[in-house]
Amino acid sequence: MPRKSLLKQTLTLASLLSFSLFALYFTFVSPSTPNLTKINTQDSLFRSRENVAKEVKIYMYDLPRKFTYGVIESYDKSRGAQPKNDDSLLKYPGNQHSAEWYLFKDLNRPSHERVDSAVTRVDDPEEADLFYVPFFSSLSLVVNLNRPGTLIEHPAVLYSDEEMQESLIEWLENQEYWKRNNGWDHVFICQDPNALYKVVDRVKNGVLLVSDFGRLTRDQGSFVKDVILPYSHRINSYLGDIGAENRDKLLFFMGNRYRKEGGKVRDLLFQILENEKDVIIKHGAQSRESRREATKGMHTSKFCLHPAGDTPSACRLFDAILSLCIPVVVSDYVELPFEDVIDYRKVAIFVDSNTAVKPGYLVKLLRSVNTHRILEFQRNLYEVKHYFEYEDPNGTVKEIWRQVSQKLPLINLMINRDKRLVKRDLTEPDCSCLCSNQSGIQMTL
Amino acid sequence: MPRKSLLKQTLTLASLLSFSLFALYFTFVSPSTPNLTKINTQDSLFRSRENVAKEVKIYMYDLPRKFTYGVIESYDKSRGAQPKNDDSLLKYPGNQHSAEWYLFKDLNRPSHERVDSAVTRVDDPEEADLFYVPFFSSLSLVVNLNRPGTLIEHPAVLYSDEEMQESLIEWLENQEYWKRNNGWDHVFICQDPNALYKVVDRVKNGVLLVSDFGRLTRDQGSFVKDVILPYSHRINSYLGDIGAENRDKLLFFMGNRYRKEGGKVRDLLFQILENEKDVIIKHGAQSRESRREATKGMHTSKFCLHPAGDTPSACRLFDAILSLCIPVVVSDYVELPFEDVIDYRKVAIFVDSNTAVKPGYLVKLLRSVNTHRILEFQRNLYEVKHYFEYEDPNGTVKEIWRQVSQKLPLINLMINRDKRLVKRDLTEPDCSCLCSNQSGIQMTL
Repeated sequence: MPRKSLLKQTLTLASLLSFSLFALYFTFVSPSTPNLTKINTQDSLFRSRENVAKEVKIYMYDLPRKFTYGVIESYDKSRGAQPKNDDSLLKYPGNQHSAEWYLFKDLNRPSHERVDSAVTRVDDPEEADLFYVPFFSSLSLVVNLNRPGTLIEHPAVLYSDEEMQESLIEWLENQEYWKRNNGWDHVFICQDPNALYKVVDRVKNGVLLVSDFGRLTRDQGSFVKDVILPYSHRINSYLGDIGAENRDKLLFFMGNRYRKEGGKVRDLLFQILENEKDVIIKHGAQSRESRREATKGMHTSKFCLHPAGDTPSACRLFDAILSLCIPVVVSDYVELPFEDVIDYRKVAIFVDSNTAVKPGYLVKLLRSVNTHRILEFQRNLYEVKHYFEYEDPNGTVKEIWRQVSQKLPLINLMINRDKRLVKRDLTEPDCSCLCSNQSGIQMTL
Repeated sequence: MPRKSLLKQTLTLASLLSFSLFALYFTFVSPSTPNLTKINTQDSLFRSRENVAKEVKIYMYDLPRKFTYGVIESYDKSRGAQPKNDDSLLKYPGNQHSAEWYLFKDLNRPSHERVDSAVTRVDDPEEADLFYVPFFSSLSLVVNLNRPGTLIEHPAVLYSDEEMQESLIEWLENQEYWKRNNGWDHVFICQDPNALYKVVDRVKNGVLLVSDFGRLTRDQGSFVKDVILPYSHRINSYLGDIGAENRDKLLFFMGNRYRKEGGKVRDLLFQILENEKDVIIKHGAQSRESRREATKGMHTSKFCLHPAGDTPSACRLFDAILSLCIPVVVSDYVELPFEDVIDYRKVAIFVDSNTAVKPGYLVKLLRSVNTHRILEFQRNLYEVKHYFEYEDPNGTVKEIWRQVSQKLPLINLMINRDKRLVKRDLTEPDCSCLCSNQSGIQMTL
């Protein structure tokens, strides 16, 4: 009995002490603690204009492990690797859709290292303007050695990306903040054009971080609501000086000759280019060896061809930029990352597909670009390349968050508007659009 | 001859001196003068992210006088007023579409008075992010006592709003900066839903400052690109305290009973409401006398009805807000100003048209709102009313510029994207949209 009583006394004392400390904290220490009086509730109802302009607060969900490190573990397992006991030993595998890893890693940095980011991470969801869902959705697609829907290769692994997607939604639907604003304030990473494909209709209100809109319908994705990300480059940056003399090849391309949809232009380009002097155009699949060859090609050519793949975007464009190899873009529907701050005509040449496949046209055009112009393009490429370096502290990650933060006014508008909209007799979907009058130009050089 | 030679010497000296001063100025005084070396040209090609986030620079065109003060003069003339010799004596006539006057006046204030504005006025168009076209387009519509297209009333006046609109476009088309970016970076004020109606297709790339999108097609206007402005209130603000006891009327409406389109709901509302106790609903036209009566009604009623007019918006909503009379909005397609910072469910009640015209429904609903709830609405109205005061230094004008400045990232994106787009086989217009999934709720209280 005396022991129990002593315990009781200690507990009482401890709770009294912690209450005092708590009270003290609220009274003197924490200026930003929300005060729940009437007036302050008002303040949060009508977000003050200062807050909107200055600082965007993001909350990163603490997702069940299976959606983050668990995906890496499953990926390793299906390739026969030994399980690790410590998450910090897991290495996110190199691939072109690794923004999900860099963003996750960035938000996990200590806050004093993130002071110049456009978004501030907060631990209390109540304070947040935005909610980040860090599911490794692109890696999840390729956990099994084959693409989704096919049988798993390694008997020890039972992994289904589709089940993961469904499970994410199930988890989200139990979250208070997911329901609160119809998902408008949620940010999803789905960089691979197929990532989240099964549930995209249920997350489409959110800001989607994507490579392009090739697989999305107009009401699922647009550059008004979403953010186009660069692929992570797969070949090394060119570290030498600007110059044309060490680039003896005119044009370089290495990649899959046969693709679907817009990518059909590739075979036609092969036909007209494969016998041209100073042009290297060859079929190649993903491998360490072909990456080495591509690096050499991009570092020693003046121009690098970027035809559409299955969707309008491809990793190759960013490899070219970081190689200071002037991209020649033949992808009529491509959307480009960070286009509000980058004028791509200054760093790349755009040729429409119909013109590009005219025999002789492309080579003649590129040969007409003089050295002065080439150096100008290279200088401009040099100027913008930090935007495409995920590892650069002043690079891609910082710019992605800036782009996301710029969406906040429209997000807040949609949140407020959605809730007061009454039933209407609409003859078409309720969309607000930004339309271009331009029918497009034949070619831009 | 000696005189001429002296003159020559003086001129030479003067020009030498001014050249030195000029050089001195460029060397020491002006840190912001653009330096036209290669590197700085690059800087302006890739707008630095700091600039985009921090400060938005606007250039106001020095339009020919006929588009600004000339419109006031013509308006006065057609009403028989004596001509003034001095523009500063001209008084912009009070009307519900006077944002054009307040914005013009604001940009003409000395820069030290405008330091907390979201847009900084610049004198050099080369520095500008945005270009403001201060044509008094709404006043121009009503210069003649009758509406556009009808014969002028006063024989001394020869004024045609349509000719003014055409003439504005003609003038713009001679401007270098208008052509430079397809007009994306131009800001037009056309607050009256009919303002600029004849040329809106030619200015639609610009940011349009409008009351609603009732007369605009989807590719002409949307809240993604444009800014919804409040009408200038026409009755006096309520300056008394929050409270229900001095408001003995339940619901008030005064205005035109018969309107076109969505406004047809008005006659139905009259039918179900005109015999209700504590409800004042009466037909009234614009006059000083009816404004006085409306002021009294709005200041002594708990709720103020806001049915659609010919277009979804109307001045009355803002009169109600400033009267602390809780708006009851029956206008299914209304878009509201500043909805990213104002949650209108906290200050108004929204009822869809079909429900609102059910006999007995509206009155029963409003009688069910208890005093506690009414005071809460009033407190919220009090909190937001500054957004609707054009005269308040922290009011409408400041917020309009903040809204405009938020459009800059999308404007810059469209400028860059438009110029590199190649010819494509589009099956539908090239629009990027933000779509609401909501089919709308029956009524929001």
